Amino acid sequence: MKPIAVVLVSGGLDSCVTATLAKQTHQLALLHVQYGQRTQERELIAFHAVADELQADYRLITSLDHLSAIGGSSLTDLSMSVTPADLSSQEIPTSYVPFRNAHLLAIATSWAEVLQAKAIFIGAVEEDSSGYPDCRASFFKAFESLIANGTRPETQITIETPLIHLSKSQIVTLGLEHQAPLHLTWSCYQSTTQACGECDSCALRLRGFYRAQITDPIPYQSDSHRNAYP
Amino acid sequence: MKPIAVVLVSGGLDSCVTATLAKQTHQLALLHVQYGQRTQERELIAFHAVADELQADYRLITSLDHLSAIGGSSLTDLSMSVTPADLSSQEIPTSYVPFRNAHLLAIATSWAEVLQAKAIFIGAVEEDSSGYPDCRASFFKAFESLIANGTRPETQITIETPLIHLSKSQIVTLGLEHQAPLHLTWSCYQSTTQACGECDSCALRLRGFYRAQITDPIPYQSDSHRNAYP
Repeated sequence: MKPIAVVLVSGGLDSCVTATLAKQTHQLALLHVQYGQRTQERELIAFHAVADELQADYRLITSLDHLSAIGGSSLTDLSMSVTPADLSSQEIPTSYVPFRNAHLLAIATSWAEVLQAKAIFIGAVEEDSSGYPDCRASFFKAFESLIANGTRPETQITIETPLIHLSKSQIVTLGLEHQAPLHLTWSCYQSTTQACGECDSCALRLRGFYRAQITDPIPYQSDSHRNAYP
Repeated sequence: MKPIAVVLVSGGLDSCVTATLAKQTHQLALLHVQYGQRTQERELIAFHAVADELQADYRLITSLDHLSAIGGSSLTDLSMSVTPADLSSQEIPTSYVPFRNAHLLAIATSWAEVLQAKAIFIGAVEEDSSGYPDCRASFFKAFESLIANGTRPETQITIETPLIHLSKSQIVTLGLEHQAPLHLTWSCYQSTTQACGECDSCALRLRGFYRAQITDPIPYQSDSHRNAYP
């Protein structure tokens, strides 16, 4: 019997590849968290499609209402506009939700402790993370130490970030290699039927597919976006 | 202008004393989190009463539905019974919510970052914590390092645990010294009108008042409970 891993699955590209990799060594407990983001219904559809395809053993959908109550991000505060992508900028974009990954990992840890899971997988990517402070390898190391300090003595949970040092194009390539169901994923922060092609998340995704020399299987509002981020 | 502190206020004794201490040096941003515990409506009343009395500058009430969805604790899973208090036991009691303080501190941190607060106060107590792993000083140190790793570079937030090494009777005495509104607090895990006097939380509270040689100002189902934990 394989050990259980809790995998954070947003419904996007990175988490789909991460769950596909986790399945090789673990039973899958897929966790999806809604936090009031604009496109959450679309992401939930993508989550279930990916979970079905990977035949997940457990799935849990939770919501974090307080992230939109707290505000401070254009992802959850509908009065702020989403900044158009600027992949050369070093600034933290307006879509940054303060400390978001700590909330996600706290839920994952509580569930992992109840399921007696041995690992938590998260598809964080350091280089492509648009400067979000809670996407860095050092953050996940710090969280692993927090788990060791804050759970039952018999609980042993590692945090696995198999994509952390990859570029988006390497992730696309890796996903194809392992037959990850990329056609079922959704990444756009702004639209829910055809991806906008202009938000940070679309820009990173499109650049990844472009550089991997693969056509992104999901629909965009304009095909011109597909070559917009070389 | 004093700096802002986010203070976690459950409505219980420890958080009331903590908020009273924080008020000496900080503007108060009081945070209350409901997580599906049995007595949450009663605790919310206590929270507002304490916040009014301390003239809090900001208050935020949030809920964490997923802790009851995840289960594993008699506090949130109504099918589990609350274990009668056994203050001599070294075992982690059934009221333990896995990793609860990590969830609370994640919310506090996100709010603190938006408010540009400089500190988070939490009324955790190591000795009296019934063996909960996420109530130890080492856990809060690990969380402080997580904050440094996972927030904007300009964010500087410390975690303050002024009660961490005190006994419950020392906390009662300290609260009286600083005129903390202890009569407005609620600690019982089981009842909402008169405290049960039998759950872990009542037992710890009653022992604290007994040893401080002070009469607890809140009502109990039986006055015999007041001397039951010498």
